[in-house]
Amino acid sequence: MTRKVYLEDIPLDEAWRRFIAALESADMWRPFDGEETQVAEALGRVTAEPIWARVSSPAYHAAAMDGYAVRSPDTIGATETSPVQLSIDSQARYVDTGDPLPAWADAVIPIEHIHLINQPTVRASHDSPLPNQPTAIEILASVAPWSSVRSMGEDMVATELVLPANHTLRPVDLGAIAGCGHATVQVRRKPRVAIIPTGTELITAEQAASIGVKPGDIIEYNSIVLAAQVEQWGGLPNRYAIVADDYERIKAAVLDAASKHDLVLVNAGSSAGSEDYTARVVEELGTLLVHGVAVRPGHPVILGIVDCRLRALAPALRFGASAGVADLSNPQSEIQNPKSQIPIIGVPGYPVSAALTGEIFVEPLLAKWRGQPPPQKPALKAVITRKLLSPMGEDEWVRVTVGRVGDRVVAAPLSRGAGVITSLVRADGIVRIPRFSEGVNAGDEVAVELYAPPDAIERTIVHIGSHDLTLDLMSQFLAEQGRRFVSANAGSLGGLIALRRGEAHLAGSHLLDPETGEYNVSHVKQYLPDVPVVRVTLVRREQGLIVAKGNPKRIESLADLARPGVRFVNRQRGAGTRVLLDYRLGVLGIAPEQVRGYEREEYTHLAVAAAVQSGAADCGLGVRAAARALDLDFVSVEWERYDLVIPQVHYESDLLKPLLALLKSESFRQAVAALRGYDPSPVGTVVATIVP
Amino acid sequence: MTRKVYLEDIPLDEAWRRFIAALESADMWRPFDGEETQVAEALGRVTAEPIWARVSSPAYHAAAMDGYAVRSPDTIGATETSPVQLSIDSQARYVDTGDPLPAWADAVIPIEHIHLINQPTVRASHDSPLPNQPTAIEILASVAPWSSVRSMGEDMVATELVLPANHTLRPVDLGAIAGCGHATVQVRRKPRVAIIPTGTELITAEQAASIGVKPGDIIEYNSIVLAAQVEQWGGLPNRYAIVADDYERIKAAVLDAASKHDLVLVNAGSSAGSEDYTARVVEELGTLLVHGVAVRPGHPVILGIVDCRLRALAPALRFGASAGVADLSNPQSEIQNPKSQIPIIGVPGYPVSAALTGEIFVEPLLAKWRGQPPPQKPALKAVITRKLLSPMGEDEWVRVTVGRVGDRVVAAPLSRGAGVITSLVRADGIVRIPRFSEGVNAGDEVAVELYAPPDAIERTIVHIGSHDLTLDLMSQFLAEQGRRFVSANAGSLGGLIALRRGEAHLAGSHLLDPETGEYNVSHVKQYLPDVPVVRVTLVRREQGLIVAKGNPKRIESLADLARPGVRFVNRQRGAGTRVLLDYRLGVLGIAPEQVRGYEREEYTHLAVAAAVQSGAADCGLGVRAAARALDLDFVSVEWERYDLVIPQVHYESDLLKPLLALLKSESFRQAVAALRGYDPSPVGTVVATIVP
Repeated sequence: MTRKVYLEDIPLDEAWRRFIAALESADMWRPFDGEETQVAEALGRVTAEPIWARVSSPAYHAAAMDGYAVRSPDTIGATETSPVQLSIDSQARYVDTGDPLPAWADAVIPIEHIHLINQPTVRASHDSPLPNQPTAIEILASVAPWSSVRSMGEDMVATELVLPANHTLRPVDLGAIAGCGHATVQVRRKPRVAIIPTGTELITAEQAASIGVKPGDIIEYNSIVLAAQVEQWGGLPNRYAIVADDYERIKAAVLDAASKHDLVLVNAGSSAGSEDYTARVVEELGTLLVHGVAVRPGHPVILGIVDCRLRALAPALRFGASAGVADLSNPQSEIQNPKSQIPIIGVPGYPVSAALTGEIFVEPLLAKWRGQPPPQKPALKAVITRKLLSPMGEDEWVRVTVGRVGDRVVAAPLSRGAGVITSLVRADGIVRIPRFSEGVNAGDEVAVELYAPPDAIERTIVHIGSHDLTLDLMSQFLAEQGRRFVSANAGSLGGLIALRRGEAHLAGSHLLDPETGEYNVSHVKQYLPDVPVVRVTLVRREQGLIVAKGNPKRIESLADLARPGVRFVNRQRGAGTRVLLDYRLGVLGIAPEQVRGYEREEYTHLAVAAAVQSGAADCGLGVRAAARALDLDFVSVEWERYDLVIPQVHYESDLLKPLLALLKSESFRQAVAALRGYDPSPVGTVVATIVP
Repeated sequence: MTRKVYLEDIPLDEAWRRFIAALESADMWRPFDGEETQVAEALGRVTAEPIWARVSSPAYHAAAMDGYAVRSPDTIGATETSPVQLSIDSQARYVDTGDPLPAWADAVIPIEHIHLINQPTVRASHDSPLPNQPTAIEILASVAPWSSVRSMGEDMVATELVLPANHTLRPVDLGAIAGCGHATVQVRRKPRVAIIPTGTELITAEQAASIGVKPGDIIEYNSIVLAAQVEQWGGLPNRYAIVADDYERIKAAVLDAASKHDLVLVNAGSSAGSEDYTARVVEELGTLLVHGVAVRPGHPVILGIVDCRLRALAPALRFGASAGVADLSNPQSEIQNPKSQIPIIGVPGYPVSAALTGEIFVEPLLAKWRGQPPPQKPALKAVITRKLLSPMGEDEWVRVTVGRVGDRVVAAPLSRGAGVITSLVRADGIVRIPRFSEGVNAGDEVAVELYAPPDAIERTIVHIGSHDLTLDLMSQFLAEQGRRFVSANAGSLGGLIALRRGEAHLAGSHLLDPETGEYNVSHVKQYLPDVPVVRVTLVRREQGLIVAKGNPKRIESLADLARPGVRFVNRQRGAGTRVLLDYRLGVLGIAPEQVRGYEREEYTHLAVAAAVQSGAADCGLGVRAAARALDLDFVSVEWERYDLVIPQVHYESDLLKPLLALLKSESFRQAVAALRGYDPSPVGTVVATIVP
């Protein structure tokens, strides 16, 4: 109980080698056996054995049209000038599409090619319901044998291979299986995966929504992500209730889970901190194979095997019940698992690490159990927009957004923080930077493993530049028009540089020229000297000082930033708001050193507002909407113009048409007008077309 | 009730225009409203409104590492030679990863960079549990403000847009939604779709499996395919029990379905035959918008709107209950549908027509209701391998297999029959031949809308040539190696021609040279004069006459084919078996005219056997395995060699490596040996490398 567990740095392929070797000894590294399932319920399941046709389809020679079944030799010689008549019943018999052919017939003449003859003959049948029914057909052309007939086995011949084993069943597959005589199909059993969230600091999403989040509380959502991943990868997830950081409770939960599942995921507690118990639990209950894999994010991963027969040793602990929680109240009950050696993965606590651990370890394992080849994302070559250093000794998974700009596909790195789940939400794909490599430079070609379908890339409008709240609105409206609007916040200047490098379709910019007081003229000329661009105004917006509710520091203007008791939070260099600040400070004669917090940089208006809200700063320069969003006060400084700078080649492209139409639409204008601090009157005004 | 309904020829876009106009008046052409769903249950659902962050994440400044929270100014000046000590509690406080920072702290120093100092001071607290606990930390370097801190809102700032409306939720999205304070999410209600199979001739897959298929029986599986499509496209399918061809029963089922669903699909009865009631039912219950769309397969489609308030008029009919069937026993019960005007689609009966009608009409409608853009399959340019005439006045959807052969992507058309569901099972995509176009010639570039993921194309081995049962085995084995083996039956000669045209990676061939008695030598020289090829033997196999069980016609040898009472079924020209037959008949001095049925051509051994089994013919030439598969008798004629002809460039490619390895594997050899009529001894023998 007092052993110290150290984190190792095992390369990914070595970690997998150890895991597979242990799984093989546990007889758990092979596809699961089949289970019999109704064909109608087998969508998305994987065939456990080949499907051979039981009956032929059609099972008999069938009429392919509504018409008359005939013997083709009887029709020889029929022409428009010398029609042939065939007696109904003995030489021609009516058949609906799908009806079996009479044994004597070998062709069908469609009803529309037939002339019915009524001869007033005495009919053999006395109960004939229609006294005037036709007695013969007349035809004007001969028919070839087997015409308008679906021969027996045309679709499937009994005993033929219809589908191979390990095939994921689609709707038409189910049709073919039922059509060749099967009511059930053997499909791979779904892997059962237990997900145990651990941590005394965790609260559920329900608690967060009803009670709120206190400092120290962490909303537990990794189990939701892991469960959804398992579901997506064809497994049956089972989320346990949150287990506190208590060695015995975690051990009891692991034993319970191992006795009822094929795989146990313990979330967090996988590092080497004072409350990280997972590795010790695995060591006590089985074999700790790996503790620490050289990947980032995701380093503190644990791989092991636990013996669920040890469950009888577990103390009878009771856990609080919650939705989707396995019954832990009777741990002495019969062991349900046919296998005794169950793999266990200690999943790191940071959300990006957790989700990537799912992809790196859980997905391939489930694929193996389902008889599928190792998962492979579609890959794409792209040009990276930013230099990425190789991490020391670790493979790094960098999340990127991807779009096609002109004839190049560009990949823009997102936040590398392991805690930033939105970096995965926004990611179109992953770029792997191998450990001990030299990293990549801006402009290098990289391979992107795509999350988004490749065709989505072609519908992506890439914006790099200054952040504005109306861009979120735009993204929302464009989604309805079949366009993805991907936005990277790099500041106004960063946007113009990205345009010069061909990395974006447009750049939002509000760069004040201190010489002229004009917006976005001199900088565009300076940074895009060779590129014809169109400048379209998006909005006029109010810039000012975002201050705490009630303005406790009595901040009245930018001059107050020089006051010793005022802590400022700044925007990054190149941001239009930063240019504005520096310009105004210069006018006021205030040096940066006089402003406390000048060096703390945030990348968006909302981040500045959040810093003020949290008390980390007393004020920051930003738009009114950001203050309003976080219910802060606002001291107006000035109204500025925010333009979209668009290279002419993109301005005229089909890709951007919905965006330009949006700027002219009344509904978008109204949505902008609804935001305080925004003046929608200039929306969509073409300010200038600059052709160098 | 006696009106005659005629099929029209309405172009697809006009059909959609009418349908949309009617849906708009019924207020059914817009995304459905949202319904509140637990975040953990929302995988794959579509957001009905934008998701804004309720709380920031982190909700407070949090430690990003295990370590000590400090004030960064206190650390200034610390170096290896002049360490700085900070008192625990007043200047440094221990924090675990994720813990909130004390209000006075602005940085965290990771535990591994800290030296703990034990000073024997008197502690303030009397109940201190550890008398020797450290009282200070020593550091050897200063830290920057905010280092190892996740600031409040680093991931999401409260009020920020996290996800747009109409977004399909992935695992990480659920994490982000829960992480910013939501326990539930508004997602689009799932469209409820009723599927009513109609037809007196229909039997269920369960009946077929237990009782068998009599002539005239048709296994009903379109409802399984349609239901699975609806499920795949995000709807809630509800399969009704089979309804007999009876006007009143169909009407009652439609009214019941319309009162409980958003969309009604009636399968078959949509044509203009004597038992096709759907159009009349729609006319009586609402508006018949379209009857007959100019697409193939799929022409007899019905589009309409029914008024479910008419349900009170329906007779109280009882239907046999079966799994997944809506309750029809109480048709007078309260109307449950908030809408009164419900779209109805009459889906044609042929399985390919039914599945494509799903794609053409149901999928876009469900996409609209779910707030999704119109579905678009990934497209690919490919070279078509066969001439396709433009159908008169109809757009045609041609199913194709697709593979990359050398530097070209080739698309090989599959059966165009509307009854051949396996043509959809085998299809990698669809080529649309527009009506009134000039069609396409072999070698033309066409656009393929893909069913298979584009990367699957790169893993596809394309075989065109003679059919052999061991190819099915090969396909099965290769699937386990991550290769798709796609096979088109074009006969031995067709295979060599395909190789010459660069349409296949290999061709199965058993072409006897009548001059030399050798296999696959002269034909390869003749048809591939410029292509270096490797010939690898797949098997030796027994060819003979497939005859009915008990050989009732006493067929002893090929000489019997000239007997007047013997009906033969032939293989197509270019098939190796046909070459063998013609050679042997020539030796025997029998002319083709003497062989009854010589002109009836089938494309596979199994199809020949099926013709014999059905009684359409008394015998055909084929392999023993085919006779055995259908439990027929077999009269041996001779053993022949069946080779794989592989251009050297493909023989040496990575793509074919698993196939060549397979030919050397003991497990494949054993599987071949298990088939009677096969001699596995030469499997994998390289017969010759022919370099012109």
